[in-house]
Amino acid sequence: MPANTVATTPEPPYYAVIFTSQRTAGERGYGAMADRMLELAAQQPGYLGVESVRDAEGFGITVSYWTSEEAIRAWKANTEHQVAQQAGMKTWYGDYALRVAKVERAYGRKA
Amino acid sequence: MPANTVATTPEPPYYAVIFTSQRTAGERGYGAMADRMLELAAQQPGYLGVESVRDAEGFGITVSYWTSEEAIRAWKANTEHQVAQQAGMKTWYGDYALRVAKVERAYGRKA
Repeated sequence: MPANTVATTPEPPYYAVIFTSQRTAGERGYGAMADRMLELAAQQPGYLGVESVRDAEGFGITVSYWTSEEAIRAWKANTEHQVAQQAGMKTWYGDYALRVAKVERAYGRKA
Repeated sequence: MPANTVATTPEPPYYAVIFTSQRTAGERGYGAMADRMLELAAQQPGYLGVESVRDAEGFGITVSYWTSEEAIRAWKANTEHQVAQQAGMKTWYGDYALRVAKVERAYGRKA
């Protein structure tokens, strides 16, 4: 499932992790890590979907959707994910923000 | 304030509107409308900030931040914004999703 499509999610309530980041210059393994994290996240309990986009200037937004805060905490604590988080903070990202939010209502359209 | 930077937001709780969309082909006034909506949103009561990015394939995520659900409702009901919403659903967007979420916790780094 590509991450640059509108995710199909259940009726609220559920949770969203909004991760906004500015990439530093230089690839340094970023793409492979990002692909692997999308793959690994999708295998976690409570995962509902992800939407991710980054522009040519390196600014990106990734929103992942989860059934519960417990699922989010477990994903954050995942060992392989922890290694990626450390490298991200040290190497791949300049400014970033991570926000955990409870989705209360939603609507949309999918073809 | 450009929308493709990490927004500075207060301590939670506050609200996020996560708008994900796939652009249809053809410009048809989209860019001017999008710029105007960012400008107009920033003038609304309860507005905290926005982050927005769209990739070369037309998939985009815009997250706007607000003090309250009331502020979000007032923005949705704004007359000029209503016209843009109608045109968006009819012309500019294919698949889309809009999710209203309460940000419960957040952290990050800004240079």
